[in-house]
Amino acid sequence: MGAPPGYRPSAWVHLLHQLPRADFQLRPVPSGFAPQEQEYQQALLLVAALAGLGLGLSLIFIAVYLIRFCCCRPPEPPGAKSPPPGGGCVTWSCIAALLVGCAGIGIGFYGNSETSDGVSQLSSALLHANHTLSAIDHLVLEMVERLDEAVRTELTTLEEVLVQRLELVAAARGARRQAEAVAQQLQALAFWRGVPLSPLQVAEDVSFVEEYRWLAYVLLLLLELLVCLFTLLGLAKQSKWLVIVMTVMSLLVLVLSWGSMGLEAATAVGLSDFCSSPDTYILNLTQEETGLSSDILNYYFLCNQAVSNPFQQRLTLSQRALANIHSQLQGLEREAVPQFPSAQKPLLSLEETLNVTEGDFHQLVALLHCRGLHKDYGAALRGLCEDALEGLLFLLLFSLLSAGALATALCSLPRAWALFPPRNPSASCSGSHLSEPLLRARLEPEPPPRSFPGCRRRPH
Amino acid sequence: MGAPPGYRPSAWVHLLHQLPRADFQLRPVPSGFAPQEQEYQQALLLVAALAGLGLGLSLIFIAVYLIRFCCCRPPEPPGAKSPPPGGGCVTWSCIAALLVGCAGIGIGFYGNSETSDGVSQLSSALLHANHTLSAIDHLVLEMVERLDEAVRTELTTLEEVLVQRLELVAAARGARRQAEAVAQQLQALAFWRGVPLSPLQVAEDVSFVEEYRWLAYVLLLLLELLVCLFTLLGLAKQSKWLVIVMTVMSLLVLVLSWGSMGLEAATAVGLSDFCSSPDTYILNLTQEETGLSSDILNYYFLCNQAVSNPFQQRLTLSQRALANIHSQLQGLEREAVPQFPSAQKPLLSLEETLNVTEGDFHQLVALLHCRGLHKDYGAALRGLCEDALEGLLFLLLFSLLSAGALATALCSLPRAWALFPPRNPSASCSGSHLSEPLLRARLEPEPPPRSFPGCRRRPH
Repeated sequence: MGAPPGYRPSAWVHLLHQLPRADFQLRPVPSGFAPQEQEYQQALLLVAALAGLGLGLSLIFIAVYLIRFCCCRPPEPPGAKSPPPGGGCVTWSCIAALLVGCAGIGIGFYGNSETSDGVSQLSSALLHANHTLSAIDHLVLEMVERLDEAVRTELTTLEEVLVQRLELVAAARGARRQAEAVAQQLQALAFWRGVPLSPLQVAEDVSFVEEYRWLAYVLLLLLELLVCLFTLLGLAKQSKWLVIVMTVMSLLVLVLSWGSMGLEAATAVGLSDFCSSPDTYILNLTQEETGLSSDILNYYFLCNQAVSNPFQQRLTLSQRALANIHSQLQGLEREAVPQFPSAQKPLLSLEETLNVTEGDFHQLVALLHCRGLHKDYGAALRGLCEDALEGLLFLLLFSLLSAGALATALCSLPRAWALFPPRNPSASCSGSHLSEPLLRARLEPEPPPRSFPGCRRRPH
Repeated sequence: MGAPPGYRPSAWVHLLHQLPRADFQLRPVPSGFAPQEQEYQQALLLVAALAGLGLGLSLIFIAVYLIRFCCCRPPEPPGAKSPPPGGGCVTWSCIAALLVGCAGIGIGFYGNSETSDGVSQLSSALLHANHTLSAIDHLVLEMVERLDEAVRTELTTLEEVLVQRLELVAAARGARRQAEAVAQQLQALAFWRGVPLSPLQVAEDVSFVEEYRWLAYVLLLLLELLVCLFTLLGLAKQSKWLVIVMTVMSLLVLVLSWGSMGLEAATAVGLSDFCSSPDTYILNLTQEETGLSSDILNYYFLCNQAVSNPFQQRLTLSQRALANIHSQLQGLEREAVPQFPSAQKPLLSLEETLNVTEGDFHQLVALLHCRGLHKDYGAALRGLCEDALEGLLFLLLFSLLSAGALATALCSLPRAWALFPPRNPSASCSGSHLSEPLLRARLEPEPPPRSFPGCRRRPH
């Protein structure tokens, strides 16, 4: 009942968390999140290295394919102008690959925005938490100052006015002691004061890194989109130089895609390990960074019935002391005011201060309760482990699709380009050259070409 | 300081909110959100009707274009087999339109998921609020039961034990009166008990409607995707029947697109009016539905320094009464236990009950504070007015793009189809017929055809 429904690891987290991990000597590594341990770092580096292996294999495959295509094709009879068979198939497979790449780019944009959403949810939760923590500090400071001020001015005035009746002075002194005790109890409640860790700073750092990550992905996606579109344009226009430039660019984007895939895979695996049981890791890390007692951290990070409020004792004592001050002031009002009318003004002012302090006390109780901060913690985890991880998986899918599409395009482009006819200035005004290799490929089984310029084939 | 940073209307809300509105007599209508007023309903219907006007105009345009194309083309010389000029342009424009439609479908999927995200944020905020409200009810019930039980059993036992000393019985009676007063004060704090409005029910209704809305859009998007892909296939295969079926389907999807555009535009305009100043409308609606006092609703919906906690008085009184009970029990322990050892057991049990009640009281203070519920309110507004509205605008863009693309495709398809050659069984095995109308179009300026079957044109 205490805490609202919190964070549950998703199916993706479970799935990724169950993948086996190994270090550089291929010994199995436990899949608990431990980024400071060398073995675990090696396991993540190995995941990233798999992408490097994929890049190497696909480069070798492309090289072998192209060398075989260049060197081992059957020798053409000299003067024969017929292109090799399968030209249409080559161009169409290149176009299909580029379209798959474009679909992948769409998925990449979605994944990038999803990851960005998740991370911004994380930093907004951190900002909320920072707001709550600094509100507690501020409120405690305000209450303590108000009580000190009341003790210094009104209670001193009251004691001076009542100096003739010792039992009334004793009551006023009692109220002073209680007020001082409350101020002392309250000061111990500002538990985040002097803690070297600032959620605001963490949120700013996270936003800063995320901004550049987002921008880098947008640039990569735009680069790949431009490469796809200009390659399609090059094929349509049969422009050799454009296709050559785009082949080189495709190679570059292929390397970038595999590189980003390695980063994404390692991050996704690490994130899944973190997300499968984040509480322990976060508890230990926060305890190291802040030096706060584990009572307080358990209370805020777990926030269930089993963990009692570590401020309960202090809050109850403060509350009782405030109630006692109130009854002492009421007693003074009954006893002293008829005899010392000048005591009424400081008494009323004290009661007013007490009322305001009691209102602030309720606000402090609300701020100190684990619900608010635990909800921020849950929102941060959901942002990171649901939205950001989901976005990361979409980015992984984008990298996979684009690596496949670019490898296919790199295999097909030089072959498609070899099919281009030499430039004919008189025909270059028309924009629909795309059709020629296809048509030629289709006509291949027919008798060898004869030169009838200007004639065309009709299908009927 | 009291509330975390809340909801601010976005630039889109301001932009849409500033558009002029008019009723059916074209008199201007103020843009405040008032869905129960007939004028405002008329203004929204008029916005939706604009899409109907757009549909009508585009249908008339398509009809005029096609009639002009069918009836007014120059008479062909009998026996001439040359297709009309511009065939390649027609096919390419059709393909470009369909690709734009596909890009629009991608945008539509994104917008649909964004809207769904926003609405699920709204219902999760409602569930959170429901959790808080029922936790307050539950906690109050528990505290009142515990106090009643203590009054019935331990305090009665205590009075029976102390019956010989009247001043001690009076102290116990005082504690009983205070406990009964606390129970009474607490019962008045369960402000949501008996309120006919259940946030859970609202969340379930919203999720139910959203599920069907999401499904309807996914079906529309898939239908349009299928129409685009099969039309492209029909053009590539030059299959007349496929193109005819897809032309009819395109017409259907065009009507659906304009219809959804009307719905989206009216919803976006209404939502922007709601989102530009939601507090007043929500306050009035909740007051009507729940009958709660405006103090309480203002406190939760505004939650700023200007609105004081309406439960402050009751909380302070309860807190003082609890502190008084505590000091009375301590007095009894000092006075009575040496004389009546059998009083110790009920006294200890009462103190234990008091401690638990004070702990629960702090939790109740935290639950009643406006921070939690106001944060849910802010999250619900952000879900509806940021994510859902943004998604709706993406869906509007999708509808616009798809309406434009389908209208262009509907103009081009019959012309492209008229260019298809009659079926030639011997050539139907090849998949790349797409090139023929283009090639023919490109060759158009050349001399009239001569029949050299099997010859082909070479560009050099």
